[in-house]
Parts: sequence; structure tokens; C-alpha cells
Amino acid sequence: MTEDEVIRFLERFLPSAPGLVQGPGDDCAVVDLGDRWWLLTADAMVEGVHFSLSYFTPYFLGRKLAAVNLSDVAAMGGQPRFALLTLAFPAPPEEDFLRDFLEGLTSKLAAYGAHLVGGDTVKGPALQGDLALIGEAAAGAVVFRQGARPGDLIFVSRPLGASAMALELFQKGEDPPEPLKRAHLDPEPEVELGRVLAEEGLASAMLDVSDGLLKDLSRLCRASGVGAEVEEEAVPLAVDELPGLSRPLRDYALFGGEDFALLFTVPREKERALRSRLASLSRKPHRLGRIVPGEKLLLRRADGAAEEVSPEGFDHFA
Amino acid sequence: MTEDEVIRFLERFLPSAPGLVQGPGDDCAVVDLGDRWWLLTADAMVEGVHFSLSYFTPYFLGRKLAAVNLSDVAAMGGQPRFALLTLAFPAPPEEDFLRDFLEGLTSKLAAYGAHLVGGDTVKGPALQGDLALIGEAAAGAVVFRQGARPGDLIFVSRPLGASAMALELFQKGEDPPEPLKRAHLDPEPEVELGRVLAEEGLASAMLDVSDGLLKDLSRLCRASGVGAEVEEEAVPLAVDELPGLSRPLRDYALFGGEDFALLFTVPREKERALRSRLASLSRKPHRLGRIVPGEKLLLRRADGAAEEVSPEGFDHFA
Repeated sequence: MTEDEVIRFLERFLPSAPGLVQGPGDDCAVVDLGDRWWLLTADAMVEGVHFSLSYFTPYFLGRKLAAVNLSDVAAMGGQPRFALLTLAFPAPPEEDFLRDFLEGLTSKLAAYGAHLVGGDTVKGPALQGDLALIGEAAAGAVVFRQGARPGDLIFVSRPLGASAMALELFQKGEDPPEPLKRAHLDPEPEVELGRVLAEEGLASAMLDVSDGLLKDLSRLCRASGVGAEVEEEAVPLAVDELPGLSRPLRDYALFGGEDFALLFTVPREKERALRSRLASLSRKPHRLGRIVPGEKLLLRRADGAAEEVSPEGFDHFA
Repeated sequence: MTEDEVIRFLERFLPSAPGLVQGPGDDCAVVDLGDRWWLLTADAMVEGVHFSLSYFTPYFLGRKLAAVNLSDVAAMGGQPRFALLTLAFPAPPEEDFLRDFLEGLTSKLAAYGAHLVGGDTVKGPALQGDLALIGEAAAGAVVFRQGARPGDLIFVSRPLGASAMALELFQKGEDPPEPLKRAHLDPEPEVELGRVLAEEGLASAMLDVSDGLLKDLSRLCRASGVGAEVEEEAVPLAVDELPGLSRPLRDYALFGGEDFALLFTVPREKERALRSRLASLSRKPHRLGRIVPGEKLLLRRADGAAEEVSPEGFDHFA
């Protein structure tokens, strides 16, 4: 079973719980507590699979683990609050390592209003950090993956591909330019923007770009029962040029993972309101295309030709 | 750093979060949400460290992972509600394995009123299941580790040692008697009893026996700033005799891990109320001794001699 198959299996398998607004299959599970909704998410990072200590210091490893989870709460439009850490170590941890890792983790959480409140440490064959994060939102003020309708416009919150470019350079033993390095080691979860889009009802569907634009867009489309048409030239690239990469820049933006930008759809009649709200936050809109009926994902090239694409992204089991 | 040193490091390191009633250092973190308190806990099981598939089927592995976490919520007196699972696999999981594991996990959660609502699957070098569990309680109706006072009586909710005895037999390739097998593979978290003790204000301090009676009692004492005197003869044993074990039966009750009984202290003036309440639940009281001033843990033998004991329990890093 691939990762997506496991997730679909979980979705089919799990019965609905009392008070559960949204179960597996979105960035967070959502639980109804009356006037507040709680958002629950968990994400893990395993040494040798998701990172290497050859380019991650313990401090940035802590920050990245926080960011990955904060981004899931951001993608629903929530406010992160409390985190639980489970840390597996192959050998008793060094105090320096633990301090640096926790300083990274807690500083990143605190920057977005969240706090580490507990957890567990265990022995294991590889260094593995699992974080469970709890966020909150006003009841109803949450954006799911499944709200996109034909005609809605597709936006992404910032240029894409920087994290995957940095990863390739790290893996070759090279030193990426500083902004790319930061995009991979210390990505910025879009907590503020996510809240604005949810609280002001601007987005009809949303998720974060964690496994590549096309793969994540195909998830949004599947959840909403729609298709999408993306203009290739409209996909914003993290850099204009960068020597030493094995593939065209555009590939990193379309297929590269771990950008943690927000990908969201906006009803056409709200585009003006969105643009003026983004301007007030000094943020630039990046409109990629539009939602269409059907289930296909079409990539339209500059010459007007449209090609159906398969969302080959990053799969941990591929 | 040993596991206890890591936990103490975390306690010192982590600043207090807004709304946080209790941080790391108890069975759950406790968060104030107005009229309800939420209890947050996370516990992991790693293949080769916490279990072997030579004696765990996937179904019972799921039930055990649920039980370990349910017991943490029980130990605060809470009602379990929502769980997040992170599952690491060395290879793409088989559908049969996943189904059996999830059936075990979700059936055990459901038996205590809790539901799996989300999570993450990742590739990793060993099979590892991490569960984060969220429980709730009425504001203030929670029992911490730190409330024991000199003169309080010490109780345990049921006989001890069965899980550690079964584990030794499993590891020798033998087949333990059914009740012992069940104690290790499918332990019963004391959710109902924990709630009664908390809601009716009967216990002054409480935790669950996860790492051995003496080790966990020493944690309760350290948290409360007190000592304890335990009558060795009063410690209830899971079995009267069992051939083939390497150590005296009493050692398994004093030092054996994973019993998941509740260990709690009761002010002397509430002993009568406790006994009558336990009788109404058809539960037997097991009084072990009493809390004393100072910080020592004394084990009093049948001949009246008291020996200071060191809480040698189960340490994952030992």
C-alpha cells in the first residue's frame, strides 16, 4: 500500500466519532467543542527518510518538525495551541542535542502561539520525532479540502520549489543559497494567512503544499469531486535561475515537496476581496488557474496546448 | 541521560503555556478550557524495544497501544475522547496487517469511549506506533501525582506482576497462562475507577503502574515531596505460584512494568468512603502502606524490619 492508499484505507475504516466534524483525509481532524472547534494533527520525521543530520542541526530539526505540524493547522485556518512530542533515540540522548532540538522546536511553536506541553521519549533504531499538534478555531471558521466548485480560482500563497531545490543540493553535498536553505530547514507555516482566509470566508477549499503542487492539488480536487486547469506559466518559481540542478526549475515547483505554501480556491466573486485583503497584508496573489468540472488535472502550456498530468509527487513508499 | 533524566530535563526546560494547568511530569498534560479540562498524552511502542511480533499479533498490538495511552488518561481521572496515530513501517504495510492492527486499536479505544480521528504513516527502520490521546474532565476533577501528604494511605487497584511474568515467559518462547497473557497483551486501563476517584475527591495523588510499583511510587513521592512506607506482605501478587520464573514472585510485583493498575493515595479520613465506594463497584481495596515525611522509600518486611529501597524499575535506556 502506498501512503495515499493507507490514508484512503483509514478514511474508509474509521467510524465517525461523536463530536467529530472532519476525520482522516484532511490536514487536521476537526472536533466540535461547542463555540470552538479543535484541530488535531500529527506528523513524524524519521532520520534517513525525511532528513539527514549531515545538513540538519538539532536546532533546525526541531524547528522543521514544528513547522510541518504548524502548517497543517494553518491549512485549516486554525490557531495552533498545544503540542505533544514523542522522540525515539537509537542511544541515550546527549543533553546538548536535546537542548538544541527543544530550543528549535519550542521557539518555532512559540512564534505561532503554540506550546509544547508533554510527550514521551523511547529507544528506537533511528532518530524519530513525532509531534501531535492541537489548534483551535471559532466553530465553522475552518476551510476543508472539499469545498472547491467549478469556476473557483486557484491560488498559491508564495513561489514554489525552493525546498526541493535545496534538498537536491544538500544531498549532493553542496551548500544552497541562503533563502533556499531556509525554505528547506526552517520553512514558514502560513498561520496568519490561513486564519484570514478562513475567518473572512475567502477560500472555498485549502490545503498546504507538502508533497508537491500537482499531487496536493489532485488531493484537493479528489476531496471536492472536481478537476483543475493550471496555467504552467502562472506557477510562481522560487528562483529565476540556479545552476547545478538536475531538472528544469519548473519541475521543482510542480512536483517538489515541503514547500508549505497554502494552496486554496476562491469563488470568482470573491477575487477582488481576496486581492485587496492580500494587499493589506503586503502579500502578492499568485493565481494558477481554475477549478473545472470532471476529475482531470490539466496543465496548460504557454502555446495554449493542455496536457492531462498525473500527480507524480513525493511518496514515502514510492 | 536516562528516561527519567530526559523527563526532568523537559520539565525544567519547558516554559508554562497560557491555559496550561499541568505540564510534563504527570501522566497527562492538563489544559484549561473553561468548564472542561483537557488531558493530553502520547505514548509510543517500538518493535524490538517494547514488543516483539513473535508473541504480539497485529490485533493485540493495536489494543496494547490503545491501553497504554488510555491508562494515562485513567491515571488523571479523565474520560478518553480522541486519538491520533502515527505509524512507522519498515516496508509498505500489508492491508491485512493494517486492518487487524486498526481493528485492535479502535475496538480498545471504543470500549472506553474514545475514537481514532487521524494521524500519519511514515517509512521508518522499525515498526513503531505512536498514539496521542486526548481526554477530558470537569474543571478541577483531576488527580495529579503531587497531592500526597504524610499520613495518607497508599492503595493499588489490583494485584501486580502478571504482565512482567508473561513477558519473561514469552521471551523464553513459552506460553503463559491465559490471565497473564491477557495482562501483557491486552491490559485493562482503569478508566472507570480513575474517574470515580477523581470526581468524588477520594484520591489525593494518583498515577498508573507502568514501570514497576516501586519506581512509580517513587515518582509519586518525588512529585509530592514525601516518602512512603510499604508493607511487603501487603503487595497483592497476580498469582500464588508459577513455575519456571527466574525470580521470586514478589519481584515481579515490586519491579515489573506494564501492570497499568492505578496507584493512589487516600487521606486517612476518607478510607471508609473509599472502601464502601470500591465495594459498590465490586472492587477489592489493596492497601500497601502509608505516606511518611521525608523522601525515603521504605519496604517493611513481615518481621518488622524496614529497608530503604532504591526504585529499580524498567528504564528504556538502562
